[in-house]
Amino acid sequence: MRVTEIRDVDVPLDGVISNAVVSFTGHKVSLVAVVTDVVRDGRPLAGVAFNSIGRHAQSGILRDRIIPRVLEASPDDLVDDEDLIDPSAVLRRMLQGEKPGGHGDRAAAASAVELACWDVIAKYHDEPAHVTIARAHGREPVSGGVPVYAAGGYYHDDDDLRRLRDEVRSYIDSGYPAVKIKIGGLALDDDIARVEVAVEAAGGGAHVAVDANGAFDVDRAIAYGRALAPYGLRWYEEPVDPLDFAALADLVDVYDSPIATGENLFSVREVSNLLRYGGLRPDRDLFQMDAGLSYGLTEYARMVDAMELDGFERTSAVPHGGQLLNLHIVTGLGLGGCEAYPGVFQPVGGYSDDCVIGDGRITPGERSGFGLEAKNGLADIIEDLIR
Amino acid sequence: MRVTEIRDVDVPLDGVISNAVVSFTGHKVSLVAVVTDVVRDGRPLAGVAFNSIGRHAQSGILRDRIIPRVLEASPDDLVDDEDLIDPSAVLRRMLQGEKPGGHGDRAAAASAVELACWDVIAKYHDEPAHVTIARAHGREPVSGGVPVYAAGGYYHDDDDLRRLRDEVRSYIDSGYPAVKIKIGGLALDDDIARVEVAVEAAGGGAHVAVDANGAFDVDRAIAYGRALAPYGLRWYEEPVDPLDFAALADLVDVYDSPIATGENLFSVREVSNLLRYGGLRPDRDLFQMDAGLSYGLTEYARMVDAMELDGFERTSAVPHGGQLLNLHIVTGLGLGGCEAYPGVFQPVGGYSDDCVIGDGRITPGERSGFGLEAKNGLADIIEDLIR
Repeated sequence: MRVTEIRDVDVPLDGVISNAVVSFTGHKVSLVAVVTDVVRDGRPLAGVAFNSIGRHAQSGILRDRIIPRVLEASPDDLVDDEDLIDPSAVLRRMLQGEKPGGHGDRAAAASAVELACWDVIAKYHDEPAHVTIARAHGREPVSGGVPVYAAGGYYHDDDDLRRLRDEVRSYIDSGYPAVKIKIGGLALDDDIARVEVAVEAAGGGAHVAVDANGAFDVDRAIAYGRALAPYGLRWYEEPVDPLDFAALADLVDVYDSPIATGENLFSVREVSNLLRYGGLRPDRDLFQMDAGLSYGLTEYARMVDAMELDGFERTSAVPHGGQLLNLHIVTGLGLGGCEAYPGVFQPVGGYSDDCVIGDGRITPGERSGFGLEAKNGLADIIEDLIR
Repeated sequence: MRVTEIRDVDVPLDGVISNAVVSFTGHKVSLVAVVTDVVRDGRPLAGVAFNSIGRHAQSGILRDRIIPRVLEASPDDLVDDEDLIDPSAVLRRMLQGEKPGGHGDRAAAASAVELACWDVIAKYHDEPAHVTIARAHGREPVSGGVPVYAAGGYYHDDDDLRRLRDEVRSYIDSGYPAVKIKIGGLALDDDIARVEVAVEAAGGGAHVAVDANGAFDVDRAIAYGRALAPYGLRWYEEPVDPLDFAALADLVDVYDSPIATGENLFSVREVSNLLRYGGLRPDRDLFQMDAGLSYGLTEYARMVDAMELDGFERTSAVPHGGQLLNLHIVTGLGLGGCEAYPGVFQPVGGYSDDCVIGDGRITPGERSGFGLEAKNGLADIIEDLIR
């Protein structure tokens, strides 16, 4: 198997929403196709993936550095013993000439290509990606689905509390066992009023998580922690800057309920620092690193290994990024669950109609690969890209 | 003063050299011009800068995210009380919509624009950038030049030891008080043989620094540390991965001579972690963060503040990146010294002919701004960019 071409296209995300830090207006992600010399149904076999959600399209880095390195590699250096594309070998090649540190945009750029390689392999075997991923990691895929929760609760300028209540109720009514809402965009009291509304609408604090998107300094994180504590929330997400491990450890000291973080860590090295310095507790806290932002599944699986070495269960991993790539990864690796963004971040956010959601769990469809071609609004973009 | 346009061009670097990790063949940096509505000598006043050396051109991020945000800003939000461009305000605007963490390529992209703003302000005042920088930070610029050392000692396939000896001697003969050579690209014994040659050619270990470019794990870093210790080297640079603070602290415990690191940290947050966890010693160790890779001078000055708050002198800051931008920053902020790359990384590496090198010190020329227009090979590229 040889890589003959790698293409990318910027895909704009729908939905004008914002969290404590970021407005998603004008946000784009990179959709990448890795095209091979294998012919299926009269067409070249191609794998498709994107760089998750939230850290921008990366066409510049892809075209300037990542894609040329792969295409200029000796083909034998990119395949495994069975002559199939080896995602870890492709990653190594993509990072040739890159200095250590600086795990930002390039990690997202590389991830789209690396994940597209997994799509190629799964399609080659004519099996869903979670089956390929499980086998490659010496595991059985989870059967019966993985836990899923609904992430939303963004701020609205008009009629915010009523819309929040309706939104939370609609998620619970749709079968999601938990919902996540934003905090940090208002004064503490106003944010707590929103939490109160969400907890009531969801039927209790165990069904509500809150997300500060890294916006708090240690004092504000602790003030929120004290105010949130009585609700017994499902988790308190990214309370402080993702790299402020000392502030996180200070919060962990005074906040008993679960804390979740990690979506803005993009390398094993950063996760190792979180494990070493962040004070997280193996019996309750959660990790949200996202393969689509962090060099792909090769590096992500190493992050999960690092967590396990440090005494955490792999079910403590609940990736950021509610989309099909992560559904297959969570199912294949037996992780703790998936995020869903009902109605936003289209066309890449959320799942395809052949995924089954019920009893608070989600099961991927049976289509080969990640099944992005079955995703509403994405099929045409993919067809344009690989045609 | 209004920003009317921001342009960028990729500038390829000359010189086929490599360190323990990276080959610089095909390496490029982004040269950026910030054009204003102020007219001088019949032309729009423009500031020019680039994103240092070593982390690639960033045209994609500049054009997709950074430049449009600045141009779409309300002009009043980008100026100070005197209606001059405010680099910190421009930086804030450049990062609008960016999530926390992930300080990689975008930090380099933003730095080129931020530093070009300093060039604008200095040119507006018709003074060298180091004068502007000193005044903005409540300081007097250093007079009589700042310390400079020659960085080289890259590996050669042929006749390596003889070429290394000649190179080191040529630097010492040219008046550089110290030279830096690479380690980590060979087996330990072969690297030590190179160190031996360099120490002899330089006239003692105090005149030789070594740079591992983050290539070692903790065991190899310590093994090298033990082998290097007898030479009493000037410093041992980037022994381990820039984010592996625990490994660095382990090395610090057993290596008495100075250690230098930080060129691959691009944010105050990462530097704070280095200060907190790396075990560095205020009486000897050195910091090499580079404004041109880390969001520009605004963020870099905050890094220096963080160092000082932690008990280090500002002369402990010896930036990576031997080029005119850093010469003016070191002179303006009163830092510990500058790097020079005689003969490589042209046309952006090194200094212009109007800089004075002597007695182991370098003094910037009197031209307005950073004086990049006086740099051999750069004048034409700048003229093409702003014309």
